[in-house]
Amino acid sequence: MRDVRVQELSSHDGEQVRLKGWVYNLRGKGKLLFLLLRDGSGICQCVVLKNELGEEAFQVAKGLTQESSLQVTGTVKLDERAPGGAELKVDGIEVVQIAEPYPITKKEHGPGFLLDHRHLWLRSKRQMALMRLRHRVVQSFRDFLDGEGFLCVDSPIFTPNACEGTSTLFETDYFGERAYLSQSGQLYAEASAMALGRVYCFGPTFRAEKSKTRRHLTEFWMLEPEMAFADLDDVCDLAEGMLRHTISQVLERNAQDLADLEQDPARLEGWNRAFPRLPYDDAAQLLLQWKAEGKYESDFEPGDDLGAPDESMLGEHYGCPVMVTHWPAAVKAFYMKRDEQGRALGVDIIAPTAGEIVGGAVREDDHDVLLQRIQEHQLPVEAFQWYLDLRRFGSVPHGGFGIGVERTVSWLSGVEHVRECIPFPRTIQRLSP
Amino acid sequence: MRDVRVQELSSHDGEQVRLKGWVYNLRGKGKLLFLLLRDGSGICQCVVLKNELGEEAFQVAKGLTQESSLQVTGTVKLDERAPGGAELKVDGIEVVQIAEPYPITKKEHGPGFLLDHRHLWLRSKRQMALMRLRHRVVQSFRDFLDGEGFLCVDSPIFTPNACEGTSTLFETDYFGERAYLSQSGQLYAEASAMALGRVYCFGPTFRAEKSKTRRHLTEFWMLEPEMAFADLDDVCDLAEGMLRHTISQVLERNAQDLADLEQDPARLEGWNRAFPRLPYDDAAQLLLQWKAEGKYESDFEPGDDLGAPDESMLGEHYGCPVMVTHWPAAVKAFYMKRDEQGRALGVDIIAPTAGEIVGGAVREDDHDVLLQRIQEHQLPVEAFQWYLDLRRFGSVPHGGFGIGVERTVSWLSGVEHVRECIPFPRTIQRLSP
Repeated sequence: MRDVRVQELSSHDGEQVRLKGWVYNLRGKGKLLFLLLRDGSGICQCVVLKNELGEEAFQVAKGLTQESSLQVTGTVKLDERAPGGAELKVDGIEVVQIAEPYPITKKEHGPGFLLDHRHLWLRSKRQMALMRLRHRVVQSFRDFLDGEGFLCVDSPIFTPNACEGTSTLFETDYFGERAYLSQSGQLYAEASAMALGRVYCFGPTFRAEKSKTRRHLTEFWMLEPEMAFADLDDVCDLAEGMLRHTISQVLERNAQDLADLEQDPARLEGWNRAFPRLPYDDAAQLLLQWKAEGKYESDFEPGDDLGAPDESMLGEHYGCPVMVTHWPAAVKAFYMKRDEQGRALGVDIIAPTAGEIVGGAVREDDHDVLLQRIQEHQLPVEAFQWYLDLRRFGSVPHGGFGIGVERTVSWLSGVEHVRECIPFPRTIQRLSP
Repeated sequence: MRDVRVQELSSHDGEQVRLKGWVYNLRGKGKLLFLLLRDGSGICQCVVLKNELGEEAFQVAKGLTQESSLQVTGTVKLDERAPGGAELKVDGIEVVQIAEPYPITKKEHGPGFLLDHRHLWLRSKRQMALMRLRHRVVQSFRDFLDGEGFLCVDSPIFTPNACEGTSTLFETDYFGERAYLSQSGQLYAEASAMALGRVYCFGPTFRAEKSKTRRHLTEFWMLEPEMAFADLDDVCDLAEGMLRHTISQVLERNAQDLADLEQDPARLEGWNRAFPRLPYDDAAQLLLQWKAEGKYESDFEPGDDLGAPDESMLGEHYGCPVMVTHWPAAVKAFYMKRDEQGRALGVDIIAPTAGEIVGGAVREDDHDVLLQRIQEHQLPVEAFQWYLDLRRFGSVPHGGFGIGVERTVSWLSGVEHVRECIPFPRTIQRLSP
């Protein structure tokens, strides 16, 4: 007897196979039962006929509760109408465990209840689809970068200094010293890039922000590629290439998940084209014009950072991710290199409906300029000595970007709240299960 | 002019190309210089002739200091004697920055000095080779599991309860509550496996152990696959398959790195065979016999956990990784399932020279037995309620294992101290840079 997973079923037409999984749903009448079995790779419709199975086994099948675990044997039959393109004609059922009454039912549950039961909620169709999408995003990011010659060089989580203030940092006692949980691996990734040329770090990131929005988690996963000998175009090309690769992979390999999430693939296809690149000044002019024309409302004034309505408006106008470059230095980080007009050589990628998903930049590579910036920002120079060293021993133009996994999943899935885009969300109000 | 990286050079024989990187070494006499240029992907010997370059440019080349950054153009010439199989006949040099006198020189530096300069030490040949090896290990782990239908489902880092005591946990203030940094994602991975079938979590792990050994870091990366409907053989097969895939990948793709680390590939080839599997009782008998024969010294008595000398002896005897299974329950974790003889269905993989690199097990899947264990171990039942839920709603036999990235790199590289196997090590005495 061949053990197969639901996702492989359609390549076993006519064969007798065994599936192992859980009851997702059970309905039927008289001598016929439709058992939806989920095994993590997909959901299969199993057709149970009393005449095939015999009275005793049929009664066992009828008594299966939601989320009961079982093994089912039967013959695969291709059927376009079935989810996944195949169903199973059951000839045997072996029950592993009859589940107790399952707390998550078809009725509407509030988010608090669902989050309290996150360990079970993950078994719902939509949540499984989101986790498979998240996997594909992580895999696509890595595969793309590996293919471009990047090396995974992880930055540390424990950092000794609260470089930019402690207000949004989680702190821990580190054998008598204070340590802080990293908010970004970028500075270390710069050091790694000077050694290995093209690198990325990819790990959890921690922010003790008291933000209670649908876009904030206290713990989220961030990818940060960094490359030596790179200018702003290189950074933009890399981010665009990686995002388009990811969109392609999702379209090619997660069609069922998009369907489960009620997402039209055409939406993603529309994003898979050259991302417009426009300098901040041009973006600002457009926004002012749209404001004047009454197309949207905003407090935006030239020189400001973009707010949520401004990002929405830009995303809506272009219908695909937009790269806004050459920012007013005042709204960007101290380490960004500036051009001759004093603009920060940064790039934000604004995605339709999702807002900012990527923040990137060319880094200041001149020792004296960087030192001056650190002093201007009243940062502790001593803590940055190793970072300044990178500008003393073979400094080169370099840059990179950061992208959050959960915001990317939220964007691609159309699921607005990032708390559904990570297996076990941590927010200002939630630390369990 | 084509920009290439050192690792691609050998496929550009006879072409004019440009390299971008740093001076790794410079030597020569009279009208000839040998410039070793590193770009992160490898090290290339660049041949600089005064007659080719002209007086002025040649003087510039002569003045290059270690770690100066530059761009070099020239013609690729295959040469078996050259590292990487090709060298560059230079026709142009463009200096990016002349580096200040570089602190890491050819003289012996103590580990403290090198670790203080970790951001620069990473540029040394051995450290670069280790980072490339680490990348390959991470990539091989993921690729293997992805190919087997596993999904990356990350476990949370912040956890609400100090389930097994706080002595080795890092603690943080979480908006007024106490949160602890995860020591293992396994329990959450079990929940994910009940939803997605085959999963892995892969992230940093934190242990506040006061251990000052070559095998301990306070922050290290751990992969933890978990699968539903699995027995001990399945767990063993998965771990063996993944490790052998990793060994193959390193042999195939990191030959130069192994050479830089002075590792004989034959050593790794010798490990790439079916790993012997022996029950603890058989291992214990062998150890007692070897003790009696004076082959090694140890305090080991049957029933004990294995100590470092016992692991060394087993590894040496077999010359490849050994799987020790069916352990005395007393030395294993509460969540392990037991067989009819009361043995814990766990497996440790002991690797020659490296000791334990994998710890895996089948998990107890019976609610009442698990509850009893939790009570026996005087653990807070309330904190484990969600974990117990997994045994109420469709419990299935399941198992998995954990493997540390840095210990694997240490094993494969022959570099004894794990602090060199992670980009920025964190130990009881070290939190910077």
